[in-house]
This record gives sequence, structure tokens and C-alpha cells, in this order.
Amino acid sequence: MQFHHHGYVSEDPRVQPASEVGLNRPERIPDQVDVLIVGAGPAGMIAAAQLAQFPGITTRIVDRRAGRLEIGQADGIQKRSVETFAAFGFADEIVAEGCEVTQTVFWKPDPRDVARIVRVSREPEDERDVSEFPHILVNQARVLDYFGRVMAQAPTRMKVDWGLEFEDLEISESGDHPVTVTLAHSAGEHMGHRQLVRARYVIGTDGAHSRVRGAIGCNFSGGASNHAWGVVDLLAVTDFPDIRTKCVIQSHDAGNILLIPREGGYLVRLYVDLGDVDAQARSSIRQTPVEEVIARAQAILHPYTLDVRHVAWYSVYEVGHRVCDRFDDVPLDRIGQRLPRVFIAGDASHTHSAKAGQGMNVSMQDGWNLAWKLGHVLEGRSLEALLATYSAERQRIGQDIIDFDKRWATMMATPPEQLGNPREVEAAYAQITEFAQGFMTQYAPSLITGDAGHEALAAGFPIGRRFRSARVMRVADARPLQLGHEARADGRWRLYVFADRAPIGDDSPTTRLAHWLADSADSPLQAQPGAAAWYDVKLVCQQSHTEIDIGRVPAVFMPRVGPYELVDYERVFASLGGADDIFAQRGISRDGALVIVRPDQYVAHVLPLADTAELAAFFRGFLRGPGSQPS
Amino acid sequence: MQFHHHGYVSEDPRVQPASEVGLNRPERIPDQVDVLIVGAGPAGMIAAAQLAQFPGITTRIVDRRAGRLEIGQADGIQKRSVETFAAFGFADEIVAEGCEVTQTVFWKPDPRDVARIVRVSREPEDERDVSEFPHILVNQARVLDYFGRVMAQAPTRMKVDWGLEFEDLEISESGDHPVTVTLAHSAGEHMGHRQLVRARYVIGTDGAHSRVRGAIGCNFSGGASNHAWGVVDLLAVTDFPDIRTKCVIQSHDAGNILLIPREGGYLVRLYVDLGDVDAQARSSIRQTPVEEVIARAQAILHPYTLDVRHVAWYSVYEVGHRVCDRFDDVPLDRIGQRLPRVFIAGDASHTHSAKAGQGMNVSMQDGWNLAWKLGHVLEGRSLEALLATYSAERQRIGQDIIDFDKRWATMMATPPEQLGNPREVEAAYAQITEFAQGFMTQYAPSLITGDAGHEALAAGFPIGRRFRSARVMRVADARPLQLGHEARADGRWRLYVFADRAPIGDDSPTTRLAHWLADSADSPLQAQPGAAAWYDVKLVCQQSHTEIDIGRVPAVFMPRVGPYELVDYERVFASLGGADDIFAQRGISRDGALVIVRPDQYVAHVLPLADTAELAAFFRGFLRGPGSQPS
Repeated sequence: MQFHHHGYVSEDPRVQPASEVGLNRPERIPDQVDVLIVGAGPAGMIAAAQLAQFPGITTRIVDRRAGRLEIGQADGIQKRSVETFAAFGFADEIVAEGCEVTQTVFWKPDPRDVARIVRVSREPEDERDVSEFPHILVNQARVLDYFGRVMAQAPTRMKVDWGLEFEDLEISESGDHPVTVTLAHSAGEHMGHRQLVRARYVIGTDGAHSRVRGAIGCNFSGGASNHAWGVVDLLAVTDFPDIRTKCVIQSHDAGNILLIPREGGYLVRLYVDLGDVDAQARSSIRQTPVEEVIARAQAILHPYTLDVRHVAWYSVYEVGHRVCDRFDDVPLDRIGQRLPRVFIAGDASHTHSAKAGQGMNVSMQDGWNLAWKLGHVLEGRSLEALLATYSAERQRIGQDIIDFDKRWATMMATPPEQLGNPREVEAAYAQITEFAQGFMTQYAPSLITGDAGHEALAAGFPIGRRFRSARVMRVADARPLQLGHEARADGRWRLYVFADRAPIGDDSPTTRLAHWLADSADSPLQAQPGAAAWYDVKLVCQQSHTEIDIGRVPAVFMPRVGPYELVDYERVFASLGGADDIFAQRGISRDGALVIVRPDQYVAHVLPLADTAELAAFFRGFLRGPGSQPS
Repeated sequence: MQFHHHGYVSEDPRVQPASEVGLNRPERIPDQVDVLIVGAGPAGMIAAAQLAQFPGITTRIVDRRAGRLEIGQADGIQKRSVETFAAFGFADEIVAEGCEVTQTVFWKPDPRDVARIVRVSREPEDERDVSEFPHILVNQARVLDYFGRVMAQAPTRMKVDWGLEFEDLEISESGDHPVTVTLAHSAGEHMGHRQLVRARYVIGTDGAHSRVRGAIGCNFSGGASNHAWGVVDLLAVTDFPDIRTKCVIQSHDAGNILLIPREGGYLVRLYVDLGDVDAQARSSIRQTPVEEVIARAQAILHPYTLDVRHVAWYSVYEVGHRVCDRFDDVPLDRIGQRLPRVFIAGDASHTHSAKAGQGMNVSMQDGWNLAWKLGHVLEGRSLEALLATYSAERQRIGQDIIDFDKRWATMMATPPEQLGNPREVEAAYAQITEFAQGFMTQYAPSLITGDAGHEALAAGFPIGRRFRSARVMRVADARPLQLGHEARADGRWRLYVFADRAPIGDDSPTTRLAHWLADSADSPLQAQPGAAAWYDVKLVCQQSHTEIDIGRVPAVFMPRVGPYELVDYERVFASLGGADDIFAQRGISRDGALVIVRPDQYVAHVLPLADTAELAAFFRGFLRGPGSQPS
């Protein structure tokens, strides 16, 4: 956490100074905004939290609810999501209040008496070999609260405009604010009144029944039938011994349960399978009383008892596997001919079963993917073409999740005796952990994802995958830390310069790259006046920190910041050596490598230190040059 | 973090429900209180934060300042203090914003050219073998802010009453509220007005010039001369390479500096030695201008430059080694004949040099030591005799610190050529780390500290020392965690039952102890109706967690809580085995052991599982029985 560089900060340093649109933010939504976000769920809130970091951009987020979500909805937080929370600054806090999942326990009918369930195996989580972050369970309401705090503490002092419902939108072919949105006050003193808001861009994060999606005519396709679950958050007394661990419980003929222990040490969520439902059966399944779901759970748990003392929340969750053909307003046959103005994200664009715990997590990655791109285009850093990459990247992920989820849900719903290999579920579960934890996303080559030509220079950072952290030593203060955790959701591109073997400061590929970055007219840091601030340029040396003379480190790695032009010492790192040598752990060439990472933590490119021509060309593909005007 | 057991908690679970005195807490200080704390520094704030957890006790804390401390004062946080912050629930957050110290670098005159300083050694911190917590640097103001938040989120909804200055107090020999305190409004609308407050107990945490100390006639004795330091928090540009690490810098003839890098990555504190001053020189040394201190620092740092861009704070810190003969109002010749009503803590009771970084840290342990005892006496849990242990325990610690500090300060001030062994400072520094980090406190046998007769049963938990954490596996959710971090500052005694080797649930010493604790009239859990809630009884098994049938764990380790009588699953632990076996790490007998730990984390006693007679006798020494009335 860096602060005091603009002068002494006496109170909580997490509260950034208000600036630009945050200085006199109007309470009521203005008639004209840069970005309008419709829906304050996970996808909308992360997009708002990211855009809140851009002080010149007016973003407003509306929701038809009268106030914050209080209970219910999603509760599974993948490791990738916790990693994301770390970038937004609240991972430690939410982990402290969440329930950490360390294993999944499988229960099945006892072969000696199929009326009784027995524990058949305990499958550990990935033992941290996929990520150093935990997998936790915590109510969605708290996730949204934390994003709300990030927004409130950001320079723009953003908050949700509650009680505003999206009715419709129209997109003009011209004008600075071409999208006109009709909102209706759904709560508060103006209830019933309408307001027109003109926006440069609109994000529809308004859920599975998205009206924004309807307004831009996306095709939301998928399976004909829905799968239904009775979902209940309850406080109970039981002799079932695994009530505090995640369990998959399959009974002989009473059905099956996904049991999720929850934050706080007492609350438990049960997903009780109610089976596939077609259009005819829908209204009756929706009216399944909670007592019936609890009775079914009690039958499944036999011979254990479940004495329910309090039902905190109950819902019939009924969803099909659906994904939109596109995540923006550009028809498929016009891609490349015009640029998007309206986007959909989260459940508005893809829905899937609750069991695999993907919904909230994938939705947040949608929102983050889109928000930094909008920030860069609106600030005039990047060409508008950048925005077309959102639908291209995320629609495919949406489709992949559906495929994954179908396989998983089908397997879960198959009676154990019909599975060829009795341990098939467990084996599959282990294989899909990496996917389930959100780390299988790999973006294809595009405007912002390079080709794999030099990938071997840093084999542990596959292009298109998220940058995987490793431990290093910060040189100036001899502090060991996770390199990846230094990446904040500040909208900056990151250039990780893994140095060659020469002593730092000698004439070397590293030194020449440093000078080129700082001085060349072709450097992305020189794209416009002030552009250097858009990049976080880090040096990682292969030597021990005691061998590095900080006085000889090139200036681009120790930039001057703030009104006092102080030196930022926190961008220069060294290998910890031995088993903790990041060069060995991540397969980085001893000749060095440049790893370019996007603001949302995905590896965009890997290049040799000397290949400044390719480096310049890569950024030239989407950066605006000096004198260009923002859209 | 445990919650939801009284029903669903939608918002931040760190905010406890208000109760009793917190339900209608008057804005203005009432004329009659249980505890009045004078001074909102570290000792006062931790005492308030601890007392805030007792919902039936009216505690008010006053300070003559008009509002919170904004800058300056102490900045060194020992590992023991971070451990303490963990008990109060904010260690992770303050560590994230603080500056972690991983080494101290020593600079001395270059033997080849004594006008230049050179780096002679880097001494690592204790490499975590004393504690798993870091040593950090962060401004005192933030420490106080976090305690303020703990108070505000506690059931009593406590906050500081600013702008009230202590003038005097009188102690009556009788009455429920025998201490009458005169306060003067030093700020705000009532400025100039006086208010009388009658209190059961008064804590003077009003600093080195304490008027509470004066009012109870303590003898504040120590060295005749004071040592002076110019202390400056600054933002600077320098080519001194170790500006971001803690350094001890001794020049040939320009003096010496203790350099402290500070939170946020840019701020630096310099302690510039101004030498010993006698009474005559005092006023002139106090007027040393900051320019002179900076010029001296620049001379010491030669050949490096120090370009000061901004001075955030400056003070001449001038202090002698002083300690009171007693920390309460009971004259030494009347100890045992009457009980204390007024206490002093922190700088009011002991002062020492800034260099060893003891002041704030020791003061917080004073405040914590006292506050839980007051809570227990005022709630009627314990006999008033408990209160006499405060002065007995902490006065000796105050004296020990002075002795330590004198040795350290003298060595620091000695010109290097006068030290017999040129590496003496570094060697001494390494030896005293454990002391400096706050872990050498060891209370002598007393009413609440048992004798060492059975200490060998748990050699890693010496009686009188703080309970040192180790990793274990929580059985119910298979979660590895630090056992010690489960201990919160909730005012409870902790009984750690390290089980014998029998399977859990079999007839065994562990099971018999469990039944005795739950059922015997001699058990401390049966001292009064409801007394079981005063204890946190934990079971630590030597088996692996998969070998433990949670259904067979005795009920005392899985108590029922809240209106729904839910089961608390979070008190049963197992060994992690191998190198992480807590029994091996802490030298615990395989026949089991009972380790009794105070609310402030000090080990009070170690007993065999079967020695219930001694266990009963220990608690009988200070617990009130049924029907007793609180003081």
C-alpha cells in the first residue's frame, strides 16, 4: 500500500483523495453520463469499482432494488475471485469472515444397506498448487458490500443509485452520448417517475431476465429444460458429522444434496436437487414449500438427523444452460464494421447450474474485463476497437462454462450405480478443480493478446492466461512478498521486466530496454504526454537482493511520483533463490524476458528484452497516439 | 469469526450487536460510571477496547485533546503487539498498511576514510522463530484508530469523550463509587466548565506528565538526566541506498541516527541523537530547530545526500528512564491491607528512550493486563483481590524495560571505537530481539499464576509467559490454522485440553476431565449460574483429524450457543502431524496436559488432566462463588 507521497495521510490510507468527478458528485443521476451500468450484482459492481478508479469518467450504476442485497443468492468464491479481490484490496478481510473450503467429502449409499449413506472419500482442494489463495464461501451480499466500499473510497466517490429500473434504450448512430436509456423510479420519493439518461456506453448486468439484453436483441439460447434446486440457508442441529465441510451427498432413492457450510461457523446451505423441469412443470416446482425441501434433505441424510432450528433464506433456483451469441449490441454479421455501445455481462449473458459455483465468479471476470477497456477508451488512452475484444473474449468463456457445467451437472445427477466407475465423480472432481477455481480462462490471440512465438522465454506465464504470482524479494526493504499481489486494480498495464544475468546497471539488454521504455518515441510510455503513468513497470532480477546496487537501477523502474517528486522504491525485486527462485518456478529464460500483463491480470504478451520493435507494434495496435481525441 | 448463531447477520459481522449499556449510551459522560479512563493513548485505548466487550459495565474514556491524534508520537509495533492486535481483530489490516521490518542494517565510519559511512552488516529480524507475526512500523494515530473501531463495534458502542481534562481526584473510604474525579472541559461548547464524575475505578493513562499519578502520590523515580532526540518524519530524495530499511547509523564525529522507514513507501523517520541533557540545558535543547536536526542528519549520512522535500512532523523527544514504585493507589506499606481504586498505566507509570521501541508496546500490555481484571471484578466473576495483581505484575515489567533500555541506549550512544568488540552492537542486537519484540515478559507465581510443578507436561508453554501459537487442524472443517489466533480479546479464560492418547470419547483422563468441567460443583464453569460462558474450553487431540469421530467428542468441547442452541464446532482440534505436530513442537506430554491461559494470553497454569483438585483450587483463589455480590 503506497501513500504519503502527496503529503501526510493521517486517516485510513485506503480512502483515496477525491478528484475530478468525485469532488462534487451529484446525489441525483445526471441526464448525461459516460457509462451507465444497469444492475448492482457482482458483474455490475466490479465494473463500477474498476471504473471508479478513473477520476475523469462519470459512471453511474443503477439497480431496481430499494437498497443493498441482504441475504441469499450466490455464496461460492473461487480462488480466482479471491485473487481478484486482492487486486481490489479486500481479499484478507473477506477471507477472514468467509468459510474456507479445504476438501469436499463424498457420501453415497452404504452397499451393505442402501437406505443409509456412508462417507466414501474426502477429496482435498488443490493443496494450493493452482493458487496461493483459498476457496471460500460467503454470502454474495458481503461481496457486493466490499465492492461498494471500494467505489466509495475511490477518487470518484461512486455509489449505487438504488430504486431505478431499466425500461428501454435507443442507440443513435451519432453524437457523443448516443445511447438514450429510459429509467423508471422503482422506489423512493420519485417512484413511478421516468428519467431519460444519455450515455456514451451502457452495461447491462441486470440478471438472467435482462431487459438490456432484450433491448439489443441478443439471442439467449441453450437447453430447452431447466434444472431446479431447492436452495435453503439454515441453522440446524444434526449428528451428520460433516456438517461443517462441503459435501456431495447421493442417496439411493431420496435424491441428492450439495451441502455448503457457510461463514460464521453455524449457517449451512443445502442445494436439494429437484430435477429437470420442462415448461409445463415450472410453476408447480417454483411453489415447492421449504418444508418439502427440508423433508427431502432429511430423507437423503438418513440415518443422520437434521433438526432445523431456523430457515434464514429459501428459494427454488431454476435455471437452464444458456449463453448469448454476442455480449454487445453489434450483430454478428456487422462485427468489424461498427463498434459496440451497449454490453451485457454476468447472468444477462450466460446462466448455468448452481452446483459448479461458477455464476458470480465468471460474472465478476466479465465485468472486470469490460470496465478497464471502457476506462481506457473514455480516457483517450486506447482506440475504440479495444471494446470489440470484450464480446469476443467473454462470449467464448461463457460457452466454455456451459460445456463444463453440463458435464458436471449431468454427472452429479446420475445415480451412482449408473456411473461406470464408482469413483468417477471423485476423479472428475479432482481433474476439474483448476477449471472450477477459475484459472482455465485463456484468451486467444487478438488485438491485445500476442502470439505464442516467444512464450518459451517465460513458460510459466502462458499467453492469454492470468499472471500467476510467485514469491520474490523486494530489494529496497528486503521484504519477501508475492509479486502478483502487488498488482492492484488501478487500470494500469504491467510490464514485468525479468532481467538478464548481467549486473544491474551494466550495459545489458535490461538496461537498453529500460532506456528505450523511458526515452524512445516508439515506447508505449511515450504514446501521449503523461502516458508513463498508465504503466506499472517492474524489474525482477535473478540475483539475490544483496547483490543489487539500488543506486544503479535504471530510472524507469524507480519513477518519481507526486508533488515532491519522490522515488518509488517498490518496483524492483530480486529472486529469493533456492526453491523460491521465480526464474526457475516460472521457467523464465536467464537471458531475461518481458512479460506484458493486462489491467485485469491476464498475460498479454511475452517478448525478448531486445525486441522493442515487436513491443512497440503490440501497443501501437490499440493505443491512441499523441493529439488523438477520445471518442 | 463466529456469527449467525443469533440469527442471520447481513452486514459486517465484525459489528457486534449492541447490548446493555450500549443500547442507550448517553452522548455526554454521566455523573457516575464504573470505570473512568483518563487519556486516549495506547494504554487507555486498549483498556477501553477490552472493557467495551463487557456490556454491563459503564466505561468512559476522556482525553484533553479536542479530537483524534493526527500525526507523530510512536511508530514501532513489536510482534507481541501485532499478536495483541490479532486478538482484537485488526492485525491483518494494520499489517497491510504498515511497513514491515525484516532486517536492521548497520552503518559505521569507513575505516579507510572515517568521514564516510559504510554498510557493515545486515541483521535479519528473528526469522519468525519467536513469533509468526511481523514487526511493523506504523503511526500511533492509526493504532488508536483501530482500537477506536473495536470500541465502536463492541456491544457497549464506546467512544472517546474528547475535550475533557483531568484536574484532580479524591478517594473515599466507602460507597459504591468511591473515586470522585474533577474534569474540566478543554474544548467544545462547555469549554472552561468543570464536571464531577464519580467512578468505581479510575485508570490514569495520561502520559509522562500524568496528573492522575500526582493525585495518588506515586514516586516517579529514575535517572537525573534526560536523553534528547530530534525526531523528524520527512519526505526526501536521497542516494542513501538503505532509506527503506531500518538502519542504525553511527558516524565518526557527526553523531548517530536511528532511521525508520515508515508506512506507505515514502515517509521516513529519523531519530537524531542530541545527547544527554541536564536540567539546565533543557529549555535550549527543546528549542533545537528542525533545520539543525536535518543538517546534522546530512552530516552523519556523508557521503550520501539527503534532499528533504517535506517535513511532516518534528519534535524534540526528551526522556529519562523512570518508573513508578507502584502502579496503583495502594501505598507500598499497605499492600494486602486495602485494595486499589486508581491505577496508572503506560507513560504515566514508566518512561524510556525511544530507541528501543518499547513505549507504546509495553503500555498496551499494561492496559490489557488491567482491563480484563476490572471487567471480571465489576461483573462479579472475580474477587477484588485480583486487582492487586496489576501493579505487582506490571511494575516489575516497567522496571525490567528500563534496565533493558538503559543497556541498549548506552550501547547505541557509545562511539564505535570505544566498544571493545566492533560487532558488539550487532551481537547484542540479535540477543535482545526476543526482549525487544515483547516476548520476555514472565509473570511470577501469584493468585493467577501457578507454580511450575507440572510445567514439564507442556514445556513449550512456560508458566507466566504468553501462550505461543502453533498450527493445528480444526476437526469439523478440516481447516489448518494457528491455534493461538483463535483466542480473541473477549475477556474469557482459555482452557486448552491437550488430550491423552486414548481414542476421543473412550473412558480416559480427557473424557473424565471433560465431565468434571461440565458437571462438578467444584468446576470453575460451575462457579456461578452462567459461568460456563466465561471460559473457552478447547480440545487438542494428538491424532489426525480423520481419526476423530466428532460425534464422540464430549459436550464441554462442543457447547450449545445462542437462542437456537446450535453446536459450536470450532473448539476441537487435531495435530497436523509430522513437522507440524503441536505436541512435539510444544513439548506436550502424550499423557495429555491442561494449559490454562488468561484473557490477555499469558499462561496461568499447567496441570495434569487428572488433577482436578489443583484445578479447582487455582480458580477458587480468585473466583467469586455463587451468591456473592460484586464490589
